[in-house]
Amino acid sequence: MNVLPVQLFDAESSTFTYILIAGDGKSAVIIDPVERHWERDLAHLARLGLELAYVLETHAHADHVTSAGKLRALTGARAAVPSGCGIAPAELQLGDGDIIGFGAHDQIAVLHTPGHTAGSVSYLWRGNAFSGDTLLIDGCGRTDFQGGSAAALHESVVGKLFALPDATRVWPGHDYKGQSVSSIGWEKRHNARLANRGKDDFVALMAALDLPKPRLIDIAVPANRNLGLPHGA
Amino acid sequence: MNVLPVQLFDAESSTFTYILIAGDGKSAVIIDPVERHWERDLAHLARLGLELAYVLETHAHADHVTSAGKLRALTGARAAVPSGCGIAPAELQLGDGDIIGFGAHDQIAVLHTPGHTAGSVSYLWRGNAFSGDTLLIDGCGRTDFQGGSAAALHESVVGKLFALPDATRVWPGHDYKGQSVSSIGWEKRHNARLANRGKDDFVALMAALDLPKPRLIDIAVPANRNLGLPHGA
Ligand SMILES: [Fe+2]
Ligand SMILES: [Fe+2]
Repeated sequence: MNVLPVQLFDAESSTFTYILIAGDGKSAVIIDPVERHWERDLAHLARLGLELAYVLETHAHADHVTSAGKLRALTGARAAVPSGCGIAPAELQLGDGDIIGFGAHDQIAVLHTPGHTAGSVSYLWRGNAFSGDTLLIDGCGRTDFQGGSAAALHESVVGKLFALPDATRVWPGHDYKGQSVSSIGWEKRHNARLANRGKDDFVALMAALDLPKPRLIDIAVPANRNLGLPHGA
Repeated sequence: MNVLPVQLFDAESSTFTYILIAGDGKSAVIIDPVERHWERDLAHLARLGLELAYVLETHAHADHVTSAGKLRALTGARAAVPSGCGIAPAELQLGDGDIIGFGAHDQIAVLHTPGHTAGSVSYLWRGNAFSGDTLLIDGCGRTDFQGGSAAALHESVVGKLFALPDATRVWPGHDYKGQSVSSIGWEKRHNARLANRGKDDFVALMAALDLPKPRLIDIAVPANRNLGLPHGA
């Protein structure tokens, strides 16, 4: 119950990066690393004596560039990404129900949770859900680009994530209010957008948001589809 | 090996607060909470469905005010503090070797690690060391006030903390460079101030720092000796 990840933060884009340490204390996985922090993240792995087995992405981000390709090149880790995100150069294209093993006994399960983007997934590991931008603390990701769909997000959260045990910890892809972690039970009861809200009501709510286009989307999405590496590299 | 705390950050004073979740998933302890974040910290406990058993302090801080008294009043937790810090209104005055139990099976061991202040302690829990301002990542706390002593800090770090298993994770009281966690093995080999440095050399290094007086010390230390509560409250 107290197996948790290391949570790292990028203050510029309010993005969380996670390091998951296997039970053997030697092998690790990193989820959603941010380009500008590649040295910080390698330093954490070195200080904890960890070998990086996989770099995972929850989706192709529109607001920041990943360091997945760089970390892969510098560590020998494999890149594993959701199959529906158009991230071609990754070794593993993950689908719903796939299992990624690392360390002696650790397993991460892939849950396809479309809605923020069509390919978005969540990762499940030892009572922790890494929900990307599908489910945020007291909120959710936007659903208005990259194959986003408010109806799909509602199904992903209410039908799949809220079906996990209440005690499952929720580690989101972003937080803009200084919050770090939540639980399925709390979000199911209190999430301002999704708790006890039907699909039609949620779709109307999301349609009314009228958000500005993300500043970096035209740079970030193509870059992230190449694991953050320059094209041609 | 992958039992970790929740690490929370105060960007104003670069202070880390830690929530330790017991193996039963119901009971928790908080270390070094910061006054201005008491609502954030209570929200984390509520979202994770945790009951707060203890509020712990590593020392009487000079750079920020604790929320220990406030959290105690709002949760019914007990305050446990190092006996040498002059924090009178705490229920438990802790000495070297004391054990604090919480949850069904969790134990925190108290290690007296003077040097930053005369009363400073570190807390040990399931392969994690919460080193306060005694040992920082690639650094250490200052030793020039509140009974601080460079010689004592050298003994605490080299003699006590560096004697812990190399894989012990080090969770510091502050970080000013965006780092989150380290290990005893790494600090023993690489810490810029303390790795492979004799006591006399270290004492001379610390004496030469000539740091300015902390801006908040005359407010923070008396406040923290009262668990952050107004005097007379
Ligand atoms: Fe996103
Ligand atoms: Fe301090």
